[in-house]
Amino acid sequence: MQLGVCYYPEQWPRSMWADDAQRMAELGITHVRIAEFAWSRMEPRAGQYVWGWLDEAIETLAGAGLKLVLGTPTASPPKWLIDAHPDVLPVRADGTRWNFGSRRHYDISSETYRRECVRIVSAMAERYGRHPSIVAWQTDNELGCHDTVPSYSPAALKRFQAWLERRHETVDRLNEAWGNVFWSMEYPSFDAIGLPNLTPTDANPIHLLDFRRFMSDEVASFHREQIDVLRRFAPNADMLHNFMGFFTTFDHYRFAANKSIDVAAWDSYPIARTESIALPEEQKARYARTSHPDVSAFDHDRYRGIGGGRFWVMEQQAGPVNWAPFNPVPAPGMVRLWAFEAFAHGAELVSYFRWRQCPYAQEQMHSGLHLPNNELSPGGIEVRRAAAEIAASDVLKDLPAAAPAQVAVVFDYETQWMFEIQRHGTAFDYQTLAFDYYEALRELGIDVDIVSAKADLSGYKLVVVPSIAVIDDALVRQIESSSAQWVFGPRSGSKTGAFSIPGNLPPGALQHVLPMQVLEVESLRPTLQPSLWMSGESGIALHWREHVRANGEAQVEARFADGWPAIVSHGRVRYVAAWLTHSLHRTLLRQAAGDAGVAVQALPEGLRTRRRGEVTFAFNFSATTQYAPAPSNARFVLGEALLSTGDVCAWTEA
Amino acid sequence: MQLGVCYYPEQWPRSMWADDAQRMAELGITHVRIAEFAWSRMEPRAGQYVWGWLDEAIETLAGAGLKLVLGTPTASPPKWLIDAHPDVLPVRADGTRWNFGSRRHYDISSETYRRECVRIVSAMAERYGRHPSIVAWQTDNELGCHDTVPSYSPAALKRFQAWLERRHETVDRLNEAWGNVFWSMEYPSFDAIGLPNLTPTDANPIHLLDFRRFMSDEVASFHREQIDVLRRFAPNADMLHNFMGFFTTFDHYRFAANKSIDVAAWDSYPIARTESIALPEEQKARYARTSHPDVSAFDHDRYRGIGGGRFWVMEQQAGPVNWAPFNPVPAPGMVRLWAFEAFAHGAELVSYFRWRQCPYAQEQMHSGLHLPNNELSPGGIEVRRAAAEIAASDVLKDLPAAAPAQVAVVFDYETQWMFEIQRHGTAFDYQTLAFDYYEALRELGIDVDIVSAKADLSGYKLVVVPSIAVIDDALVRQIESSSAQWVFGPRSGSKTGAFSIPGNLPPGALQHVLPMQVLEVESLRPTLQPSLWMSGESGIALHWREHVRANGEAQVEARFADGWPAIVSHGRVRYVAAWLTHSLHRTLLRQAAGDAGVAVQALPEGLRTRRRGEVTFAFNFSATTQYAPAPSNARFVLGEALLSTGDVCAWTEA
Amino acid sequence: MQLGVCYYPEQWPRSMWADDAQRMAELGITHVRIAEFAWSRMEPRAGQYVWGWLDEAIETLAGAGLKLVLGTPTASPPKWLIDAHPDVLPVRADGTRWNFGSRRHYDISSETYRRECVRIVSAMAERYGRHPSIVAWQTDNELGCHDTVPSYSPAALKRFQAWLERRHETVDRLNEAWGNVFWSMEYPSFDAIGLPNLTPTDANPIHLLDFRRFMSDEVASFHREQIDVLRRFAPNADMLHNFMGFFTTFDHYRFAANKSIDVAAWDSYPIARTESIALPEEQKARYARTSHPDVSAFDHDRYRGIGGGRFWVMEQQAGPVNWAPFNPVPAPGMVRLWAFEAFAHGAELVSYFRWRQCPYAQEQMHSGLHLPNNELSPGGIEVRRAAAEIAASDVLKDLPAAAPAQVAVVFDYETQWMFEIQRHGTAFDYQTLAFDYYEALRELGIDVDIVSAKADLSGYKLVVVPSIAVIDDALVRQIESSSAQWVFGPRSGSKTGAFSIPGNLPPGALQHVLPMQVLEVESLRPTLQPSLWMSGESGIALHWREHVRANGEAQVEARFADGWPAIVSHGRVRYVAAWLTHSLHRTLLRQAAGDAGVAVQALPEGLRTRRRGEVTFAFNFSATTQYAPAPSNARFVLGEALLSTGDVCAWTEA
Repeated sequence: MQLGVCYYPEQWPRSMWADDAQRMAELGITHVRIAEFAWSRMEPRAGQYVWGWLDEAIETLAGAGLKLVLGTPTASPPKWLIDAHPDVLPVRADGTRWNFGSRRHYDISSETYRRECVRIVSAMAERYGRHPSIVAWQTDNELGCHDTVPSYSPAALKRFQAWLERRHETVDRLNEAWGNVFWSMEYPSFDAIGLPNLTPTDANPIHLLDFRRFMSDEVASFHREQIDVLRRFAPNADMLHNFMGFFTTFDHYRFAANKSIDVAAWDSYPIARTESIALPEEQKARYARTSHPDVSAFDHDRYRGIGGGRFWVMEQQAGPVNWAPFNPVPAPGMVRLWAFEAFAHGAELVSYFRWRQCPYAQEQMHSGLHLPNNELSPGGIEVRRAAAEIAASDVLKDLPAAAPAQVAVVFDYETQWMFEIQRHGTAFDYQTLAFDYYEALRELGIDVDIVSAKADLSGYKLVVVPSIAVIDDALVRQIESSSAQWVFGPRSGSKTGAFSIPGNLPPGALQHVLPMQVLEVESLRPTLQPSLWMSGESGIALHWREHVRANGEAQVEARFADGWPAIVSHGRVRYVAAWLTHSLHRTLLRQAAGDAGVAVQALPEGLRTRRRGEVTFAFNFSATTQYAPAPSNARFVLGEALLSTGDVCAWTEA
Repeated sequence: MQLGVCYYPEQWPRSMWADDAQRMAELGITHVRIAEFAWSRMEPRAGQYVWGWLDEAIETLAGAGLKLVLGTPTASPPKWLIDAHPDVLPVRADGTRWNFGSRRHYDISSETYRRECVRIVSAMAERYGRHPSIVAWQTDNELGCHDTVPSYSPAALKRFQAWLERRHETVDRLNEAWGNVFWSMEYPSFDAIGLPNLTPTDANPIHLLDFRRFMSDEVASFHREQIDVLRRFAPNADMLHNFMGFFTTFDHYRFAANKSIDVAAWDSYPIARTESIALPEEQKARYARTSHPDVSAFDHDRYRGIGGGRFWVMEQQAGPVNWAPFNPVPAPGMVRLWAFEAFAHGAELVSYFRWRQCPYAQEQMHSGLHLPNNELSPGGIEVRRAAAEIAASDVLKDLPAAAPAQVAVVFDYETQWMFEIQRHGTAFDYQTLAFDYYEALRELGIDVDIVSAKADLSGYKLVVVPSIAVIDDALVRQIESSSAQWVFGPRSGSKTGAFSIPGNLPPGALQHVLPMQVLEVESLRPTLQPSLWMSGESGIALHWREHVRANGEAQVEARFADGWPAIVSHGRVRYVAAWLTHSLHRTLLRQAAGDAGVAVQALPEGLRTRRRGEVTFAFNFSATTQYAPAPSNARFVLGEALLSTGDVCAWTEA
Repeated sequence: MQLGVCYYPEQWPRSMWADDAQRMAELGITHVRIAEFAWSRMEPRAGQYVWGWLDEAIETLAGAGLKLVLGTPTASPPKWLIDAHPDVLPVRADGTRWNFGSRRHYDISSETYRRECVRIVSAMAERYGRHPSIVAWQTDNELGCHDTVPSYSPAALKRFQAWLERRHETVDRLNEAWGNVFWSMEYPSFDAIGLPNLTPTDANPIHLLDFRRFMSDEVASFHREQIDVLRRFAPNADMLHNFMGFFTTFDHYRFAANKSIDVAAWDSYPIARTESIALPEEQKARYARTSHPDVSAFDHDRYRGIGGGRFWVMEQQAGPVNWAPFNPVPAPGMVRLWAFEAFAHGAELVSYFRWRQCPYAQEQMHSGLHLPNNELSPGGIEVRRAAAEIAASDVLKDLPAAAPAQVAVVFDYETQWMFEIQRHGTAFDYQTLAFDYYEALRELGIDVDIVSAKADLSGYKLVVVPSIAVIDDALVRQIESSSAQWVFGPRSGSKTGAFSIPGNLPPGALQHVLPMQVLEVESLRPTLQPSLWMSGESGIALHWREHVRANGEAQVEARFADGWPAIVSHGRVRYVAAWLTHSLHRTLLRQAAGDAGVAVQALPEGLRTRRRGEVTFAFNFSATTQYAPAPSNARFVLGEALLSTGDVCAWTEA
């Protein structure tokens, strides 16, 4: 359990650097990330590198015993580069080009820009690649942020056409796979295919999907080009990129494949995330100052999977931020709590953003560990406490890596894209549904792994698939060969990889293990509320319901009042034919967990637990003081059972 | 009463065609529409026609005894055509061009495209014009859909300037008619006049109106160019275009003039329409699964008038669709009900969309009579029943054409445009007002014709004009020479044809028969609710109220609490000086019907009746089971008096 | 107290002019504004001036004894000018150009257009500058309206770069001042700096601020170029421009500096303003027909300050208008009331818009003193009464100029821009906060001056600063040297002039007189409601709260329930650390007024008073009849104490 911080030496007088470094070390910080926005200082003019300041900054920090994470500066190409290559600017869906003047103003498909990035990264890596204090390299910053991916540029078009040709080989096959006979959309050649923007009505969904697949690959290859350089010059450092929360623009599993990263790092802003995602208003109100209790955990568990077990929080909220619709001050304790929460979920490092609030430019309203006047901020004071608590506990200091959980939630990026392209009903959002299932499991005290459907799922007792658009034979084989309980949510198996309806109707190949068919589906306006009883509990469908037919030996476990099945099962596999109220999801998962032999402990509102090694952590996100569910033989290694709002404790069992 | 279906042979293997054709005939279907999106298959490359597949499809269907409606494929120009003539793509109001990749991606003012359309239509017509099984031709598909009309292209500008010159003859007259002295908007010549988009604030309303008139004429002439070809090669077929519901982009009366169509066909999607038009939320909730009871009827009655008595439903919703904000499954029975409803309103043919749900491309979530696996869908099962019911009844099989009604509602497209251009209050929508009056009449059990103000209105006992912006002398003469009761709603006569206020104040020429003047008007925020009593019933004004003065012998029939007149009348003419609550509209029309000697039968909520020939139909759109208002001597030719939700019955009187 | 009217002779037949002029004089009107949209009639083709009609119009009006205000026609360049110089059209933030076809279709930075404006103004001024009846000249019309300022044109870019160079001298200094090291935004030269539009995420706030400062200066210099011409040819006339209500696009203090105007004129549309500004919905509902009681007064007091004591209402609403989301008819009496209200606040002239409703073009739904049929409108009848009342009273006829008030509210345009650029929370709007404080003072019966922070504030007993982003040393010296009570609202002193956080933390230099620091700030979602008690009254913070620390001898006067200070004071200076509920603002200001020795008289809802010279006016904006708070020795010079809705009275004390 280690603490880090993000630091921008170029933004402060050199006279402050040594003091900053010394105080970081004193605070208990071990890692410092620097340099990821400093291109204009590394190379003030084309080809004129200026390394002196960075050499000094690195030596100053290293000299204080700090380990360094070096960021490549490609998220903010300098003005001279844009002036020399205006085509580097990305293009919006409406056809206009973005301007210079903030960040991420580059077209990820620009070959010019990719060349420039390889050049600057090579220069950096050559100089610093073998520095002993530089333990990790980060590429770029928050790839895909600010909707600059996808870019609708001529460069993107050209690379998209080539990507399509590699994928489909002949244009006839593409026309067949896409069903372009519909509305006479057939293309005479690959170079006749355009981008799917500015169409008078919906573009072909597979056109949109292939474009999203392509753009996801573009993000991965952009990163990979830098990694290839960095591996050569920095063979001993960890490679990473700082991902974002609730972010699905690219397929993180594909991104992370083939050792393109060593650790999955992500940027955690729980309060702003709680405000900005599609939570019920009541929950946004309740958790406005503590953050929703699962909003960070969801991505901790997701990125732990993506990192193959290794994950960092590269940027951790340290106080109020600047970018949500409303930006409240976190409740006292939260800045400390979030660190222990990340550690409980398996994080190796939690690195706060940022050392000191910058008084100027775009992020001047974003807090840090210090106020602009260099006084420790309220968040900084909490970090000092957390660091001392870790240092004081041998158990906490050297926790083992998080062990695999008994329960997996399958999360699938393509499913997100497909149901964004084809919501069918305004309110249908796959990630929100997945989060609803995840939350229900966490309320039951269950530790969860979030994994790809392509991962080896054989070790789990319970596999929850909130939905997955395409069910392929490999997944059916995993079901057949596992002994787990399986729960599939609505729309599972409703599509083929070519974005069409399976010939045997949804849920497609799932019918091999669960004989049933979806005859019709409906999206529900808020006033349409099909009701049902399940295990003595009443509820309704929200957003989505299917009219399904149980075939063969399939059982109908629950029905709607109008007679349509709500839950169909066969053997160890359940299918949920609607988006149900949260409470019914929890009841359903409690039953499935019971059937799977997974222990359940229903937690009070806002309380969460997480195990790492022998240690159980408990966190209180609620507005009231509550007891952690520690057993009588608990030996506390952090805090105590009675938790006020924002407090955390941890124990082992005697 | 005949049933049809829309079919896309090009989307299915040839091996399925014969079976499809045979099962259509078995189901009771008599008409099949094909080909309207198949340009890329008819002409895969410029000038290379490929007719073999279409020949075979036609022979297969005709061989099963089916009659064919052939569609021209001009709603979806193929990619090679766009690549050869990129200027065919339409231009949005913001100046950007739409892209290829969906449908309707053409500029209706493009002379290039018009030439290409005449060419492909000529080729089709020449080949199939005299085929004995092809009983009708449809031009294009849903002209004006997806907001591609108006187009703001250079081609549109040039033709607009020529249109203005034809209309106004000299630019001085245009400047005078438009009042261009205001804000120094005077033009030195016709070719100096631009399109009315992208102006910093409101463009001159007459500039906007003349542009809408022009674009309406463009739609009509685009269709007419194809009709001229088709009439030559297919002299015995019915000509039609499939119009849309609640659609006012062009003037359908002008479109239909001069025999440009033989029958008015329209596409009826009642559930999606109920969700997407400006109904009160309470009604959207109530009728989410049955559709609003007047939403289809309104367009049945409108298109019956436009077709001079002849109308078809070219596409009828057969289950859940894909394009509304929410897409529920219709209540059981509705797919059958809608057919009988259309027939009751005078339809010759109801043709379902579509034979089989297409598993790929944009409309894969749009249901049909079969599921993608070729199993009859729930909607298909209802159609089979309806076909059997029709076949079983000699009365139903050969109903006469609908007779003229006693009551007319005047609907005027230019009024829609003028009050869209100048809503004055956010919530004022003319079509919504017209629908409110129509609904009130239908709740009173009254059969209605919807007609143009230019139609011969002499046969009606009651003429309801929810509003009409321009009252010309011809309309005044109709009033003077008729013996009907007349009801005029607010804003009637408030404009001249040049979009200015009449010199004698509104209601302009209506003052010849009803001496009164409108002094001031106001649009009402929802909290402003001027109250009134009318015939012992209290209510308020919504959206709009006028301060009017009764002149001469005009009577004030009702007043607002603040003293301003609400209803003014003289002789057989009433003027309503506000948008009243629905219940007051019904009370008013009940009185007017009484004065006119029109029989009234107040129907329970959600129940509707309609007479055709000797047969009275009753439909239950409500959530509860109700008795149809059949007299004691009723002889049922369909169903029985007790109607559950979604049920229909029909009777004659002994 | 004089009455005027806006008149457009070019819009009416010459045959009506003489009658119009005579009836104006008879009505009691003394001033007529003409010509400000008539460029196409003054110069129908480039260089061909046609003055005859204007000569005649002027002589006709002057012949009836009327005084004239002549407007320059530059708000509506004619079509031939645009065709000759298409680059005159302004550019939107999205990069598209606005079109001809309404008004204000010019780029304020276009040097071509500025040249053309000087030319036409010179020609007008040369011809009419010394006409004895022309007592004033108005430049252009409502500069900045319709969001055509800022323009994002190439011309604006070039002038912005030059402006930056004048301000910052070297690009290194600009990079330093702007903090461009952040995100590598450093510029190599001034001509590399772009406009701050179309950036993928937020542009640098100082980039945005300097652009707004520049654009504000552009507006001022555009006006100044015309004034320089007019002063030369019309040395005896008053110079003015007609400003707008609640309008902050440019800095009106800077605009008015250096004698660029002689009198501040503004256009007052109280009903439409009440509907369109960010008032609580409950207030919009309550005052929909009377206008909010402070909405006009706020700008009367603001423009009296900007005019150095002299202000006119150039356009006064005379009935329903056409441009708000809803446009109700004003309550009876309001058209008269608004005139007396303006006079009470110090207006020299109230000029109604317009003489007669124009039946055609964009403003045909905008009422005037006459209906389109030349009948006096309801508003016109009220104006006739007001004119008669003024004429009948020697006291009212010759009121002295308004004396300085005891209480000042500081309003600062740059603060508006800075907090628009950086709202931090969706709901934070500085002008709305300022209006809330102003309203509280007015409810206490207090007369208010609204002034610049740079004005001499030494004469006031109480200075209220709802907020001011930058507190400079000059303001601190004013505080130190005055004997007034000072109240500063939240975010005061939170920025430097370079848009960064002060090095000593907010409130920056205010700490010299009030030792305290702002540690953290938060924007509040509506459900976050920090509560507090103040003087026995409970309330909450809305939108914004700060965590502040009282230093040294500063006192905490009120605290939130969670312990954070709500009001901190030292000596005569208070700081309010949140946006409080309106009632708490009023309580706070009542205390401050008490401490300052300013008399307070709490007024009932909707009643307002204002003193001018010896006369006290009272106005009833409420829905109920109320007594004006006249003392027992009151001698009424207008009306009487019992005021129905929309009524006004005035008295002197015996």
